[in-house]
Amino acid sequence: MTSQPQQGKKDSKAQQYGVTPQSQDFNDWYNEVVRKADLADHSPVAGAMVVRPYGTALWERIQRDLDDRFKATGHHNLLFPTLIPMDFILREADHVEGFAPELFTVNKIGTEELSEPYVMRPTSETIIGHMWSGWLNSYRDLPFLHNQWGSVFRAELRTKPFLRTSEFYWQEGHTAHASEAEARAEVRQQLDEYHAFCRDVLALPVVRGEKTASERFAGAENTYSIEGMMRDGKALQSGTSHYLGQNFSRAFGVKFQNSEQREEFAYTTSWGLSSRIIGAIIMTHGDDAGLILPPRIAPVQAVIVPVGRKEDFGAMAAEARKLAAELQAQGIRVKVDDREGLTNGFKYNDWELKGVPVRIELGPRDLEAGQLVIKSRTAADKETLGRAEAVAGLPARLEAIQAWLYDRARDFLLSNTVTADSYEEFKAAIEAGKWVRAFHCGDPESERAIKEDTKATARNVPLDGSEFFAEPEEGVCVHTGRPAAYGKRVLFGRQY
Amino acid sequence: MTSQPQQGKKDSKAQQYGVTPQSQDFNDWYNEVVRKADLADHSPVAGAMVVRPYGTALWERIQRDLDDRFKATGHHNLLFPTLIPMDFILREADHVEGFAPELFTVNKIGTEELSEPYVMRPTSETIIGHMWSGWLNSYRDLPFLHNQWGSVFRAELRTKPFLRTSEFYWQEGHTAHASEAEARAEVRQQLDEYHAFCRDVLALPVVRGEKTASERFAGAENTYSIEGMMRDGKALQSGTSHYLGQNFSRAFGVKFQNSEQREEFAYTTSWGLSSRIIGAIIMTHGDDAGLILPPRIAPVQAVIVPVGRKEDFGAMAAEARKLAAELQAQGIRVKVDDREGLTNGFKYNDWELKGVPVRIELGPRDLEAGQLVIKSRTAADKETLGRAEAVAGLPARLEAIQAWLYDRARDFLLSNTVTADSYEEFKAAIEAGKWVRAFHCGDPESERAIKEDTKATARNVPLDGSEFFAEPEEGVCVHTGRPAAYGKRVLFGRQY
Repeated sequence: MTSQPQQGKKDSKAQQYGVTPQSQDFNDWYNEVVRKADLADHSPVAGAMVVRPYGTALWERIQRDLDDRFKATGHHNLLFPTLIPMDFILREADHVEGFAPELFTVNKIGTEELSEPYVMRPTSETIIGHMWSGWLNSYRDLPFLHNQWGSVFRAELRTKPFLRTSEFYWQEGHTAHASEAEARAEVRQQLDEYHAFCRDVLALPVVRGEKTASERFAGAENTYSIEGMMRDGKALQSGTSHYLGQNFSRAFGVKFQNSEQREEFAYTTSWGLSSRIIGAIIMTHGDDAGLILPPRIAPVQAVIVPVGRKEDFGAMAAEARKLAAELQAQGIRVKVDDREGLTNGFKYNDWELKGVPVRIELGPRDLEAGQLVIKSRTAADKETLGRAEAVAGLPARLEAIQAWLYDRARDFLLSNTVTADSYEEFKAAIEAGKWVRAFHCGDPESERAIKEDTKATARNVPLDGSEFFAEPEEGVCVHTGRPAAYGKRVLFGRQY
Repeated sequence: MTSQPQQGKKDSKAQQYGVTPQSQDFNDWYNEVVRKADLADHSPVAGAMVVRPYGTALWERIQRDLDDRFKATGHHNLLFPTLIPMDFILREADHVEGFAPELFTVNKIGTEELSEPYVMRPTSETIIGHMWSGWLNSYRDLPFLHNQWGSVFRAELRTKPFLRTSEFYWQEGHTAHASEAEARAEVRQQLDEYHAFCRDVLALPVVRGEKTASERFAGAENTYSIEGMMRDGKALQSGTSHYLGQNFSRAFGVKFQNSEQREEFAYTTSWGLSSRIIGAIIMTHGDDAGLILPPRIAPVQAVIVPVGRKEDFGAMAAEARKLAAELQAQGIRVKVDDREGLTNGFKYNDWELKGVPVRIELGPRDLEAGQLVIKSRTAADKETLGRAEAVAGLPARLEAIQAWLYDRARDFLLSNTVTADSYEEFKAAIEAGKWVRAFHCGDPESERAIKEDTKATARNVPLDGSEFFAEPEEGVCVHTGRPAAYGKRVLFGRQY
């Protein structure tokens, strides 16, 4: 994996628009949307991407919303070093096994070769555990409710922007508690927070569940995830929350005097959501015209395109800016596309590709007639409405688009998930790009065999409280015929 | 420089308060304030710090304010990789000379030794130049107005939290323009933005000026800085803005077709402000009781301490929360200190140490009398005011504290800057901890000799428009007797 300079091709304007249809090649469609919608580009650093202005604006909105949620439940942000002493990683046995093949190692500073190398953090449990051991005395100091925004480093050979890159952006929450029950409640609370954020802000239906043993985080006692279904039927793990028990607190001496004056190791958790959620937004909502952004997260909710002959353009652009000010006063994020020298059609395609929820066209005849031409990104046709009505109705229109996107994604998820009671049914459904609900014995060897056969993995075991697939049920394993574990069907699917 | 585990000592509550007076040991004072006010801690990674919740909250407020300013002038954020191919750094001759001794080198990923190593970015001109070369075609694509928030890595042997750490947090703006004039205007605009932010938000008087040749950024044609005076008389470079000419665009092929259809290299700039600004806040405003935070940046502007006997405490805490809600409704950032088992005196000291601008005490007698006891962090005594008057007057009180802090810092800067016309005067003033305004010939050798003699360096040559020290004047060099350069006195001082 060496440095391979790669970068966005210099497209001519004529080539720049239009993307491969999803049905023709979903992978090409994805890569083209990412690049042409100005979300991200390749970089000359093995496996790392550059997040461009529109992608960064989207990530910043995600950050802001999540950060407000974390703070509302008492969490604090901190900044820990990017580097971690190599020997820290070695201290938790499962952790090192999980991460060793992916580590970036620093062994020289200036001209000095380091006898004790550092690694670029793949995740920060170890160094945070070390710091906590110095900050913690008594149960009165607990809980520690910490979070960090930053990037982490895990070598990837086959990369794809947002989904799988060697450096990616995320938040990692780390908390320490005086009891197991409190720590477990935190793990669930944060999983539920991710779920609510996905549902309410990103219009993403996700299944909350527990990972099987073979899919657990390296060093966790329990790992929980939210899983979303992309439009090609694959699953995308969109956030995880881990109960770490006392594994890391033992490895790093994170102990406290409990209320009975006895020394005890803290009960810790970690939870993370990363920039791959942008991949989930793209692949859940997008269509053959490009991206579709849910209005609540869209950096631009409405774009106004002044139209008309060249000699009217200046006046129309001025009118568009007036209209923009009215919409901004309603709290709408709006942009005027007053670029000159581009056709209207080019601009319409451009904003559709970028997934802006609503486009408003304003020309001389509209101005005269006191009307606006409105096109929702999710509708087939334009509408012509009285200006006052259009302006007053815009917030409701945005909310309707938000709801429509969620409903469509939920229906897609439900209609592409099937129940299988034989391995033949199971394989056929996976081959057809479905998710499968099936009983499983819980044996990691069987999961491995299923993966080899079908490329499908156990996504999770839906939790009580999940609105999807959480019914308790007993049966026999679809693969081994042994009694099923978990008291529920397990969700299987191919994954990103 | 190997891994040396170090961390905050576990102080008992009794030891935790009180800091060394500034006059006794300014360095100890600083380190104790940083640690005891919960701003930052040492880390087990050579030269890197951990920024704790209060320090991170302060940095986030700084980020938010600056980010809004950058966006208001049309800048976009992007995210570039943390790693840079080593050969990029080698491509700009001055750049590599400046940064080579400080680089963190990655030469292993997983188990694979890299034939072409990466460095952890010391700054991102090189990789951004490389990406721009792929994005730029025509003058119509310009300007590129980019910014990145993140951390950078420059090895430091002697570290001090916020001021000098091997990893530090910053923003780096990078812009590319179609003409030198436009690029130079950007350089000045961003310097002026830093100045306005320091003056208006952080209550920091700073001198805008140009660096002498020997203090320029590695690869720049001109470097401009803002310089603040700390309470020990030393200067702190608090932000820089660089005109890079075509140096980086030539090295990375950042070229475009200009409006006359000819190919031209872009004119680029970069500008940065880092977490060391937190050091400037601490050392400009702090006193022997600890930190003093300017109200406009303080994460907590007012703390309410419910007081009274144990049996009244619950009721008083409830009243404090009511009062807090009233203040919040006025837009004030307020916290109720309802911790139990701590003395009032302990709490007062704690919040003074943390520099909260206003403390409000609320006890049963105050409640009965409809009054509040108020203590401004910058005043010697408490005041007792009618509740309504106190609440209504709080915004104005905070603004008055803000203005008082700026005025005090400005008076300190002015009264500790002297004019010297002989080298004897010069040396005596520097030895006395002053800044010196003196004529200088511009010879880097002379600057080096002055530094060796006095530990003072040329801070900058104040710019026209700087409210401090910008008068044009002619004279002879205080060190060599040769004709002075610059047409102005140069500002000299010892520096952080």
